[in-house]
Amino acid sequence: MTPMTTRRFTNKQIDRLLRPKSVAVIGASDRHGALGCTLLNNLVQYEFDGDVYPVNPKRDELQGLKVYKDVKELPAGVDCAVLAIPRPFVVQTVRDLAENGCGAVVIYAAGFSEAGEEGAKDQAELARIAEEHGIIIEGPNCLGCTNYVERIPLTFVETNMKTPPEGARAVGIASQSGALAAVLATTLHPRGCYVSTSVSTGNEAASGVEDYVEWLVDDPATHVIAMYVENFRRPQAFIAAARRAREAGKPIVMLHPGKSDKAQESAATHTGAMAGNYALMKAKLIREGIIFADTLEELGDIATIAVTCETLPGANMAVLGESGALRGLAFDLAQDVGLDLIELNDENSPKLREVLPDFVPVSNPTDITAIGLSEPEIYTNLLTALLEDERIGSVVASIIQSDPITSEIKFPAIQKVLDGRDLGKPLVFAGVDEGANVPEKYIEGLARVGIPYFPSTERAYRAIARLADLAKRDLSDCSVKAIKIEGIDGESGVIPEYRAKDLLRPLGVPFPESTFAATADDAAAAADALGYPVVMKAQAAALGHKSDAGGVILNLKSADDVREAFDRMYGNVSAYDASISLDGVLVEKMGTMGTEMIVGAKHDPQWGPVVLAGFGGVTAEILKDVKLFTPDLGEEQVREGLLQLKQAPLLTGWRGSPALDVDALAEMIVTMGRIMVGNPSIREVDLNPVIVYPLGQGVIALDALMLVD
Amino acid sequence: MTPMTTRRFTNKQIDRLLRPKSVAVIGASDRHGALGCTLLNNLVQYEFDGDVYPVNPKRDELQGLKVYKDVKELPAGVDCAVLAIPRPFVVQTVRDLAENGCGAVVIYAAGFSEAGEEGAKDQAELARIAEEHGIIIEGPNCLGCTNYVERIPLTFVETNMKTPPEGARAVGIASQSGALAAVLATTLHPRGCYVSTSVSTGNEAASGVEDYVEWLVDDPATHVIAMYVENFRRPQAFIAAARRAREAGKPIVMLHPGKSDKAQESAATHTGAMAGNYALMKAKLIREGIIFADTLEELGDIATIAVTCETLPGANMAVLGESGALRGLAFDLAQDVGLDLIELNDENSPKLREVLPDFVPVSNPTDITAIGLSEPEIYTNLLTALLEDERIGSVVASIIQSDPITSEIKFPAIQKVLDGRDLGKPLVFAGVDEGANVPEKYIEGLARVGIPYFPSTERAYRAIARLADLAKRDLSDCSVKAIKIEGIDGESGVIPEYRAKDLLRPLGVPFPESTFAATADDAAAAADALGYPVVMKAQAAALGHKSDAGGVILNLKSADDVREAFDRMYGNVSAYDASISLDGVLVEKMGTMGTEMIVGAKHDPQWGPVVLAGFGGVTAEILKDVKLFTPDLGEEQVREGLLQLKQAPLLTGWRGSPALDVDALAEMIVTMGRIMVGNPSIREVDLNPVIVYPLGQGVIALDALMLVD
Repeated sequence: MTPMTTRRFTNKQIDRLLRPKSVAVIGASDRHGALGCTLLNNLVQYEFDGDVYPVNPKRDELQGLKVYKDVKELPAGVDCAVLAIPRPFVVQTVRDLAENGCGAVVIYAAGFSEAGEEGAKDQAELARIAEEHGIIIEGPNCLGCTNYVERIPLTFVETNMKTPPEGARAVGIASQSGALAAVLATTLHPRGCYVSTSVSTGNEAASGVEDYVEWLVDDPATHVIAMYVENFRRPQAFIAAARRAREAGKPIVMLHPGKSDKAQESAATHTGAMAGNYALMKAKLIREGIIFADTLEELGDIATIAVTCETLPGANMAVLGESGALRGLAFDLAQDVGLDLIELNDENSPKLREVLPDFVPVSNPTDITAIGLSEPEIYTNLLTALLEDERIGSVVASIIQSDPITSEIKFPAIQKVLDGRDLGKPLVFAGVDEGANVPEKYIEGLARVGIPYFPSTERAYRAIARLADLAKRDLSDCSVKAIKIEGIDGESGVIPEYRAKDLLRPLGVPFPESTFAATADDAAAAADALGYPVVMKAQAAALGHKSDAGGVILNLKSADDVREAFDRMYGNVSAYDASISLDGVLVEKMGTMGTEMIVGAKHDPQWGPVVLAGFGGVTAEILKDVKLFTPDLGEEQVREGLLQLKQAPLLTGWRGSPALDVDALAEMIVTMGRIMVGNPSIREVDLNPVIVYPLGQGVIALDALMLVD
Repeated sequence: MTPMTTRRFTNKQIDRLLRPKSVAVIGASDRHGALGCTLLNNLVQYEFDGDVYPVNPKRDELQGLKVYKDVKELPAGVDCAVLAIPRPFVVQTVRDLAENGCGAVVIYAAGFSEAGEEGAKDQAELARIAEEHGIIIEGPNCLGCTNYVERIPLTFVETNMKTPPEGARAVGIASQSGALAAVLATTLHPRGCYVSTSVSTGNEAASGVEDYVEWLVDDPATHVIAMYVENFRRPQAFIAAARRAREAGKPIVMLHPGKSDKAQESAATHTGAMAGNYALMKAKLIREGIIFADTLEELGDIATIAVTCETLPGANMAVLGESGALRGLAFDLAQDVGLDLIELNDENSPKLREVLPDFVPVSNPTDITAIGLSEPEIYTNLLTALLEDERIGSVVASIIQSDPITSEIKFPAIQKVLDGRDLGKPLVFAGVDEGANVPEKYIEGLARVGIPYFPSTERAYRAIARLADLAKRDLSDCSVKAIKIEGIDGESGVIPEYRAKDLLRPLGVPFPESTFAATADDAAAAADALGYPVVMKAQAAALGHKSDAGGVILNLKSADDVREAFDRMYGNVSAYDASISLDGVLVEKMGTMGTEMIVGAKHDPQWGPVVLAGFGGVTAEILKDVKLFTPDLGEEQVREGLLQLKQAPLLTGWRGSPALDVDALAEMIVTMGRIMVGNPSIREVDLNPVIVYPLGQGVIALDALMLVD
């Protein structure tokens, strides 16, 4: 499944925005608080190492620089122009700049697509100009961008230009919100983390987060990519970028509101774009290795660990702990955030047994007890043993720091293990007593050897859990050949059950034996041939809810029953809605009882196909006990997903009831995925219910509905 | 429901521990790191305003104080003796002290009930001595206590003696873990919060957290009580204390591990006491107004807000916000933590409409936009309007602080509203950009007027949600008269269905009509009288699982059917287990279909009775879609609880199905509560299934099982 979309911009084009050699400040000013003033100040203060061309019709000189009256006077071929001017002047200015060979434009002004029809028209014109001239536009309605490595602040926000030293790891930021981009840099910097380049994309008239991610993947100064996204305008392009990021070993951490309905509504009004389907987007991107943060704090915390530690956390965390009381809290927290604490005990961990005090059993979290205060070498030895234990995927040092005197005992004993050692796995320091007076030198000592310091435990656990989740994902692409449905090309609209079953049955989707009949006699003959009892179902594309219309009659036991039912059904449907004309009825063998599930599939115009499966009936709708499966998943991966359903115990044999045929269900889901990939004209398929029988006895879909474009 | 237990100690007795006029340090020392050294240092350093008597057989003088060779030489009637001596010497020393009129003893040494039989025996002896002499013992295995108000540090932990100024609000700490007590003080102090007195109770040989809570309720310096508890040894005494705290307007915030199974196991090994049933404990204490924290961070955060703000948050939070991008995040977060954001819009909030910029709709969170930077009076006016709006139960200022320049614009505009005003509702400041460089004076300015400052948003939301949850609880006691079951006094062990139904039916628990029959002919006659179809169920106390034994036969349609079934059933049961002798069978009218639920009740030996209800069948066990109800709840309160079940939509009419008779179900739950209160000998009752019919048609329990002590 290679996405069809390719890059819109070369790195060279984006370089003119993010690594410009010359910058024009349109609307340059010295009025305190004016955007064009702060921007110019930023460039001057941080000694931008290129040409700066202020533009202002009313001034001759600003900050010692020559001021141009009009963009048309600018030298041709300026790399980047930043527009700190009111909205009405934006479009014409961009036109003039494009014609003058300018390579990139940043537009701060709001009032475009988010503000109604007129604004949307102007924004479309900006996109057209960009396309025509091959230039890149950042915004409108954005905060600009800052390249911290080359010290280029093209933003009107007061900037703390913290340049990463040569060789330092750094976070690249691509955000649809300027506020969030700024907030994230503010959070990372005091923790000793570096930002390489930060871009806020605003309304994305002609360039979006996905374009900047492509650039960040190739940027040698960027090691982790942090994103805030409300809506992907080009999902397939982002998927392509995410794949390249994964190949490059650069994790992408993303905050994307929309879990709650209200957040989805809010995104729709905020960006002037319809919010996408959150669950679908997430299902797709989880497969691409994206790490999702649930909150702003988590975004910063995950990025902090990812950029500080060279290795990402694997499963099986161990905790260097000191108190029994904290063990219970650790268990509760680990369960809450979905973190696996590895089971360590006297039997399975002889090396830990050796280094712990005799009277303390080996456990995880470990329990050094207060004896560590008088024998601090226990910290040293225990941490060494935990780091050398190959079963352990990450270590958290969960330490009571108290005060400088206590810190003086514990930190050096820990630091001793770290200096000059390649840890091979992440170690995160998480204080227990937030607010403790820890001398800065100890925190710096940890930072020097790539150990993130968290003042309290909970957030460290949560961030590690998110990262460890990535390690646990089986991201292998198990796509199998797409299946093309013969005879679907002429179809469109709702395809009634009997037709849908005829189309799907030959492709391996199991249905009960059935025969379509257009007369009562045909129906009776069909029933005779199938064997009794049968069920009869009314068939018409316009009949969405057969049951409501009296269009399903169960348990017919003779040809006479069938004839009578046929007439009754025609009567029912015509009484229900006289405008519906039935094609006929489907006569079907009654299925035997089993567990009711549902399998559906959907082709999202932006994200492509996805298959949904879960428990059927009312629980599906009330408990939402369903999962989404992308078509690249193999049967084993689907199986694992099914076993994560809330009611999964029903599948594996609950209280003496037999284990169900999860394999057959997984096969059906994979088949549906192949069908969706092979037939892009299918908008939706619903197999509901799907009856799952005991292991070895398969599954069967009782009803089928298809919607084709 | 007044708890029967009363206080074990008078405040005067506890005063000898927490407000002593004289302190003996047993095991006083000047050896750095020795417990008796740090303790003595603490007392001297903080200038304890009473007599200090160091005891050490090998020294004559320590810190300029006369040293006693032996506790027997001490003056009679010392208020408090702190034992910093090894475990083997503890019991005899306590005996000697008690005989010498000492009023209170603190024991640091571990190795008692948590360490095996010998230790448990010694601990029992400590309890006996305490009882005999009417003294109070803190510990063993504890970190001691500190009275910050009177500056009395009876602990071997380095103490930051931050004394609350006259009139300041402060947190009292009662903790079963010394580490956690210390950690909490460490966390609260740098936030500008005060601690009044902190007690760590250790193994609770003779005094427990509940005793200290009683004292803290009466302590004028304590305004909020923060607790860490693993296991209540005297639940009813704690409930009594909690009620007094509520009357005194002192909220109790509690961290109690045990949500996860592993935490419960861990508690069992850590404190040497069996962990209680977490869910049951929580159901009981929620009713007593306890606020539960899920994590250590939350404990500190909730205590911070509760002690800083005079008024607790009500429902309906409003957010003073500045960015549309943050709105979506706020919605997601609010939904996650269960916080109600009040709906504010142009129509329902004319006063907010007036103060916001024209182009921004009124919303919650509000959206000041970047215009606030140039018109900071919007902050002032908007905050004023939010504080004056009576619909709003709390306000969070969720502000991007950025840097000193930005802070200088926003903080004074906010502070202006607060100076000299009685807010009437809590305002919490929650920065958006954690790590922002905010000048300390602004944070102090907020603290001065009782506004807690959180560096980031998530934790503030979470803590407010927990506090607002208290405001939403209807804590009124709706207990109705206990119901005594006639004829239960002779019963014990398992009571079979027919007997249980006979006992419960007269009390208003609805069952299908049924007749007990000991012969086939009696059964047939009973069925004739009841009308067909009937169900027949085997009856014997020893027959726990009737269905498994072939002891349930449904849908019998004639007297012949019944006779045949009778013989078959006896055969089935005897084949299943030859040792079971049936009392006879129950012949019962077949019930009609409805929604299957379960109602159970349990008498916990420590916490008393509780009723459980929820959805039945497999979902009950897999999804745990059940709730616990205490017997003091009225029908309306129970109804509200039922509507919080995950599958509650099934109760209120799902997709055109009728609304169910939740009232009748609530009545049954209340009745079961009354029965449990009236008959303490009942250990368990199981009504499973309970069929719930459409509104007005009631409920009916199909089966009943009772276990009586």
